Amino acid sequence: MNHSTEVTAGVIIIGNEVLSGRTQDTNLAYMGGQLDALGIRIMESRVIPDIEQTIIDTVNHFRETYTYVFTTGGIGPTHDDITSAAIAKTFQVKLEKNREAVSLLEKYYEPGGINEARMKMAHIPEGAKLIHNPLSGAPGFQMENVFVMAGVPVIMRLMFDGITDRLTGGEPIITFNVATNIAEGVFADDLSKLQEDYPDISIGSYPYFRARKLGVNLVMRSTNINRLEELKEKLTAMIIQLGGKILDS
Amino acid sequence: MNHSTEVTAGVIIIGNEVLSGRTQDTNLAYMGGQLDALGIRIMESRVIPDIEQTIIDTVNHFRETYTYVFTTGGIGPTHDDITSAAIAKTFQVKLEKNREAVSLLEKYYEPGGINEARMKMAHIPEGAKLIHNPLSGAPGFQMENVFVMAGVPVIMRLMFDGITDRLTGGEPIITFNVATNIAEGVFADDLSKLQEDYPDISIGSYPYFRARKLGVNLVMRSTNINRLEELKEKLTAMIIQLGGKILDS
Repeated sequence: MNHSTEVTAGVIIIGNEVLSGRTQDTNLAYMGGQLDALGIRIMESRVIPDIEQTIIDTVNHFRETYTYVFTTGGIGPTHDDITSAAIAKTFQVKLEKNREAVSLLEKYYEPGGINEARMKMAHIPEGAKLIHNPLSGAPGFQMENVFVMAGVPVIMRLMFDGITDRLTGGEPIITFNVATNIAEGVFADDLSKLQEDYPDISIGSYPYFRARKLGVNLVMRSTNINRLEELKEKLTAMIIQLGGKILDS
Repeated sequence: MNHSTEVTAGVIIIGNEVLSGRTQDTNLAYMGGQLDALGIRIMESRVIPDIEQTIIDTVNHFRETYTYVFTTGGIGPTHDDITSAAIAKTFQVKLEKNREAVSLLEKYYEPGGINEARMKMAHIPEGAKLIHNPLSGAPGFQMENVFVMAGVPVIMRLMFDGITDRLTGGEPIITFNVATNIAEGVFADDLSKLQEDYPDISIGSYPYFRARKLGVNLVMRSTNINRLEELKEKLTAMIIQLGGKILDS
């Protein structure tokens, strides 16, 4: 189960198109940023194919391991949208025509526009709480600690923004960043000592290339802003002492 | 183990920065496209934090499950770069100073430029085969079916391009795409029948929003180009018959 009082999350990206490289996932990064602000830490993310048993096994593992589970993808009307049925099997409940979902679809489509394929999107696991979709009608849903959302980023974001009041986070995780032009190898030893002095702050060092020049982002993450400010000052002094510059990050 | 003759891969993205949303991963999508052409199918990808035991467990599971395993991230000189040590533990071998790696670093840095932190990047699991890094010297490495690469995309791509001759794929997977302006709900039933007629082709339906307009990409994947051309023709006819247009995709 969860590490002490930390509120954790696991993110499951469902879709062959992400594994094949055809679609660049951006949902994980969006949720990462949003959940930070809520004090919820994503501990793991998996990208899995549209295979029912894989969905069931992954969701079962995640919902027992993390405080919250978020899935994206596979809740549309086509034959490759199998997430809702898989989630029903995961929780061993029926997939049923949900009245509220039908009514949401009726508001979105013109009269007579809900054919059999579209009605599939109103089939939701028994006992689920809907997640509204202000853009295109068809809802996502919540089963216990599992939130099932669309894969299209603009819809996923609207759905996610609509469920944040259902989440109880910990202290917000604050991120500070310092960028520099000196190479990791120059400051690695000093940085390592700073990390030892601030075990409560997670320090990451991420080199990047931009305009053919190397730079490094030093990222500090913690719930304590005072400690972060203190560390940022020391880190900045360290870089200048080593002959580096502070860059816009 | 693997499904019949299919050549499979698993991708492990190592790094807190990807889970926190600070860094948008693009390495999975790059590898997805490249491996398709080699006839290797990515079956799963996991984004995991910089935690040693998690790295060990994930790599062990993947190397027994998939033909090839690719990891990115965590092989630099700073304190948060723990991948090489974790891989040595995974294979129960020593992490040793690798002569060839030292010589690669010596070529890259000016004389006397290899301090202790940089020398860390020449510490490679015993028995590993190096993966060259033409951009910044420090190599990745291969242990059996596991390929360990840098996280910085430009370096990862150069490393990946250098190892493709070590991979034995199956038949190349070919992707055809048809984009349309009609909604999924309009064609879902007909598409489902086409999928039944072409069980050897994986058909995916991916709605998107662009310039405030809805479109759908229909993606067909198979190793047989003749069957793909046949299906593409039928799919195009289906869309036109339903009153839709074919869009540039």
